[in-house]
Amino acid sequence: MAGEINEVKLLGMWASPYMARVKLALHIKDVSYEYVEEDLTNKSELLLRSNPVRNMVPVLIHDGKPICEPQVIIQYIDEAFAPAGKALLPADLYERAVARFWAAYIDDKVLPPWEMILKAKTDEERAEWAKQTFGAMDALEDGFRKCSMGKGFFGGDDVGYLDVLLGGMVPWLRPIEKISGHNFFDASKVPLLAAWVERFVDLDAAKAVFQEQDVDSLVEFARMVQPVGMATCSVG
Amino acid sequence: MAGEINEVKLLGMWASPYMARVKLALHIKDVSYEYVEEDLTNKSELLLRSNPVRNMVPVLIHDGKPICEPQVIIQYIDEAFAPAGKALLPADLYERAVARFWAAYIDDKVLPPWEMILKAKTDEERAEWAKQTFGAMDALEDGFRKCSMGKGFFGGDDVGYLDVLLGGMVPWLRPIEKISGHNFFDASKVPLLAAWVERFVDLDAAKAVFQEQDVDSLVEFARMVQPVGMATCSVG
Repeated sequence: MAGEINEVKLLGMWASPYMARVKLALHIKDVSYEYVEEDLTNKSELLLRSNPVRNMVPVLIHDGKPICEPQVIIQYIDEAFAPAGKALLPADLYERAVARFWAAYIDDKVLPPWEMILKAKTDEERAEWAKQTFGAMDALEDGFRKCSMGKGFFGGDDVGYLDVLLGGMVPWLRPIEKISGHNFFDASKVPLLAAWVERFVDLDAAKAVFQEQDVDSLVEFARMVQPVGMATCSVG
Repeated sequence: MAGEINEVKLLGMWASPYMARVKLALHIKDVSYEYVEEDLTNKSELLLRSNPVRNMVPVLIHDGKPICEPQVIIQYIDEAFAPAGKALLPADLYERAVARFWAAYIDDKVLPPWEMILKAKTDEERAEWAKQTFGAMDALEDGFRKCSMGKGFFGGDDVGYLDVLLGGMVPWLRPIEKISGHNFFDASKVPLLAAWVERFVDLDAAKAVFQEQDVDSLVEFARMVQPVGMATCSVG
């Protein structure tokens, strides 16, 4: 396969929500790719060579050239495979800026405390991270209201950039609920986001990507890596 | 001025490196704007209404519509004012992804420990943050080598996205050195970045933007806000 034009390879770790985002984007844009599972306790030569600065997954390799960092990869997929499918980021410049604002919010304010729930060493710590996550979800519910404009997805009628970013969390919702007792997409607290999850898991892309991320496997994975927990997903 | 087509207003705080980035981008793209200084101890109604989620500066208001988050603002400026000047992000999709990777690196790995030097409560803490900053600068020196391809700026012959992002730090280099004793752009450690600073401060945009950020004023500002320190710049 080496040297073939348009060869796309994804280095990832099966349980990572960041890897899931990239797979979702590739499926939505209808891009064929080869997936390579990385053992993060014994990283491959290819990973270390492809992401020498941060040594993290996911890494996308397109025609031999590595692209690193989840949001950077997804923007690259959106731009490089434009003809193959619909755009993930809005065409309107202002709407695009709004999407990028909420993308930063998801990565700065939603995912970090949510990941810390699995890393917490005490119940008090876990409760504090859960509280922060619930607060961020409240703000994100408003973000969904503004971005979706009454339609089903952040991207409107179709899935867009924010749907893909948040989509990576979806396979982890039930495992996190099983471990922490908290449902962060509870319809009584964030009704729009709760309805969004139901819609999201019904997408062909979600069905294809999430099939290996079943609840029991993720719970087992989380218990195995605690208290390091999901840090292995994000700091690979 | 209200309602005037193409009205551009920037809400900022004079000492903030994040505000300086946005001003640099506006000057480089030759965009006229009105600057509004925010008192972060008593935030204006306009700021709270424009950035209700994070209440932070900088905020760019274009034709009445607010854009928040420094990198989001700069990408918006690059896209919205394309005809007025050269592009900040490279046209080539792969080079653009590489620039976005290093942009994330600057914001995740360079600026946070560097800001913590002013927030540190003990000499030991300060030494640890300085060590992390030096480590990140070493990686960034390699990043400069790759992005600049032997030319003067991250963007090549002309300033680009990464030049603007890192440029916001420049007025703070001497103040930080005065306070901490560390020169993070020392020519003996990061010769390419040290030469870049010399080139950067000579730009018309830098001269225009940095004139209010003189060393003594910034040192006084830093001493006034310690130990909260530069947190007031970044978390507004």
